Amino acid sequence: MTLPLKSLFQLPDGMIYLDGNSLGPLPCGVSDAVKACVEDQWKNQLIKGWNDCGWMEQPERVGNLIAPLIGAQSNSVVCGDTLSLKVFQALSAALQMNPERKIILSDTGNFPTDLYMAEGLIKLKAAGIELKLVEPGQINDALDSTVAAVLLTEVDYRTGKRYNMPQLTQAAHAVGAVAIWDLAHSAGAVDVDVAASGCEFAIGCTYKYLNAGPGAPAFIYVRPDLIDTIDPALSGWLGHQSPFSFNLTYQPVSGIGRFRIGTPPVLQMAALEAALKVWENTSITEIRHASIRLTSLFIDEVESRCDQLTLVSPRDSAERGSQVSFAFEHGYAAIQALIDRGIIGDFRAPDIMRFGFTPLFIDDSDVVGAAESLAEVVNERIWDQPVYHRRKAVT
Amino acid sequence: MTLPLKSLFQLPDGMIYLDGNSLGPLPCGVSDAVKACVEDQWKNQLIKGWNDCGWMEQPERVGNLIAPLIGAQSNSVVCGDTLSLKVFQALSAALQMNPERKIILSDTGNFPTDLYMAEGLIKLKAAGIELKLVEPGQINDALDSTVAAVLLTEVDYRTGKRYNMPQLTQAAHAVGAVAIWDLAHSAGAVDVDVAASGCEFAIGCTYKYLNAGPGAPAFIYVRPDLIDTIDPALSGWLGHQSPFSFNLTYQPVSGIGRFRIGTPPVLQMAALEAALKVWENTSITEIRHASIRLTSLFIDEVESRCDQLTLVSPRDSAERGSQVSFAFEHGYAAIQALIDRGIIGDFRAPDIMRFGFTPLFIDDSDVVGAAESLAEVVNERIWDQPVYHRRKAVT
Repeated sequence: MTLPLKSLFQLPDGMIYLDGNSLGPLPCGVSDAVKACVEDQWKNQLIKGWNDCGWMEQPERVGNLIAPLIGAQSNSVVCGDTLSLKVFQALSAALQMNPERKIILSDTGNFPTDLYMAEGLIKLKAAGIELKLVEPGQINDALDSTVAAVLLTEVDYRTGKRYNMPQLTQAAHAVGAVAIWDLAHSAGAVDVDVAASGCEFAIGCTYKYLNAGPGAPAFIYVRPDLIDTIDPALSGWLGHQSPFSFNLTYQPVSGIGRFRIGTPPVLQMAALEAALKVWENTSITEIRHASIRLTSLFIDEVESRCDQLTLVSPRDSAERGSQVSFAFEHGYAAIQALIDRGIIGDFRAPDIMRFGFTPLFIDDSDVVGAAESLAEVVNERIWDQPVYHRRKAVT
Repeated sequence: MTLPLKSLFQLPDGMIYLDGNSLGPLPCGVSDAVKACVEDQWKNQLIKGWNDCGWMEQPERVGNLIAPLIGAQSNSVVCGDTLSLKVFQALSAALQMNPERKIILSDTGNFPTDLYMAEGLIKLKAAGIELKLVEPGQINDALDSTVAAVLLTEVDYRTGKRYNMPQLTQAAHAVGAVAIWDLAHSAGAVDVDVAASGCEFAIGCTYKYLNAGPGAPAFIYVRPDLIDTIDPALSGWLGHQSPFSFNLTYQPVSGIGRFRIGTPPVLQMAALEAALKVWENTSITEIRHASIRLTSLFIDEVESRCDQLTLVSPRDSAERGSQVSFAFEHGYAAIQALIDRGIIGDFRAPDIMRFGFTPLFIDDSDVVGAAESLAEVVNERIWDQPVYHRRKAVT
């Protein structure tokens, strides 16, 4: 099949949805899968569902469906919990690998929860560890032999700038630091290759470009040679080698399963597993090609129509994720006006309008339509209308 | 309405389900609620669902539905994540409250994941903290001024023994220790009163007696006077006072919301919220009365029919949760044979047969029927039949 695959999604009529970078739309088949999980599995199998419906192995099974989308080897990805918790798992493991070092290095463009989780871990350890934040682009200069771990998001959530993951990983390794990559805005959107990068850990969510629904489980990738060397800090029973032996002491299972914690959210896992079926019809390489075409087209179409906006995403497509952001003084009102016209983008303080392009369901005519509406809203000075006052913004 | 409320559940025909202490059955209305969440909210509202469908406030809103079932004040319970992670949150907070003390006290009857999470936290802190385990019943004797926190499960998952929560909490407080109670086998089953006990923290799951489905979210209770004094260790963005300001430093919100971590599992939350509607028709007081009657009846009916089983649950109903366990050498085979007869109990190594009684959907005739079948299986020496070999057991 060729992109886009609109027929695989249940998109509301007349909407151009450019917010798949926040919450992907409902793929066909997901509602039926969730219904089957509730009405066939839970209702009829009850407790037997854990064995007979494959619930227990689902976190690893679904991890293996995500693996090829991020260039990971089989059995190196497991799903569960939330991205915040996966950050905590990766970071605590990294500190375990570099026990003498005191610096966690990140930048001010990172998504805040990554930084917050680092803060919490640092306070908990009370071992003099520091979170050092530099400006985006300054990581290379800040790397030295004091750095235990580098924690970065591959695609900046505001600007859509894509970091050079292989280069930065190599630079981290050159000083003996562990590299942790947050793929929240990468997985399903760009041709990330965790194995080729050599990074130790990667983490991500599945409710954005993987379209698995609100609050869908997160995932963690651990470089295969490291998996069995790590003693998980969040040592829950489902990472135990024999959870149903009910031993009193923790002994992690061999393999990626040791990064499991508690009982997996079976309904959300069912939605996630069904959502990933979309990828049987395309590949991340095709998606990346289409994404570059769409984002480039959007920049051209917008800039040819209005000159009041400042592109904050990289103009060079090689350095851009699957979103385009413009800074604009009246961005909040402009986004509200676009939403009222059925063009769904979003806003990030202080002045950034974000537009995510998921080639799975966005085509050239959507891009042109969105650019036309954006230009109209800006050229008509929509923010002068009292109706476009500030409302609450959501990720 | 009077108990049982069988019509509020979608129970498989002909089954007597005595495993609601592992996974509760499907309440009516839950499937429709999940479907609405997927097909109306996610599909049509997409990103707007966070504001317009009440997804963002759901963890606190649902926490307030659980609060009266455990004797908690409004705004002292929040839902999310898994019980293992809630243990970690409570325990890390307790250590924060008692920074000079080095002992976490628990007993060997506690559910293993509670102990495993304590182990992980202890290693992470690397501060010389120890997990001290005593035999069940020995907690009082082990309490002294070295104990930072006491971590206990109110109703033992194997024996069904109910601890004296007010007394043990008081004893912990008498030596300056923090009391943490795991309500996994209590919430929805016994008349627990966290406020009256004075305990600092309680945690629980919702997939057992609260019938919210496989992998349903956990909850945490924090004593109201303490909430704002705790700096959460798992400091995720949704516990931030202003998550959408995207500040670089963590500042917890005032109130129970600070025990939120990452993006909540919206589909599972929808199932949980719908499952709790059952409680509009009864109260935990009624449930406790019925539970005592049912468990007492089961003991009588079984013991009058066969004498090969050893009751491991307390005979005194005041000391018993909502389950009855018998130790029996051939318990595994017996449980398998019962399952084949549509009587669903479960087995816990080495030799415990567990039968959970949820008065919401179990009545006297179920109890008598189950006792008859159990006696039959035992008296017929079912374990001599080759078909009843060992299969995998699940919580």
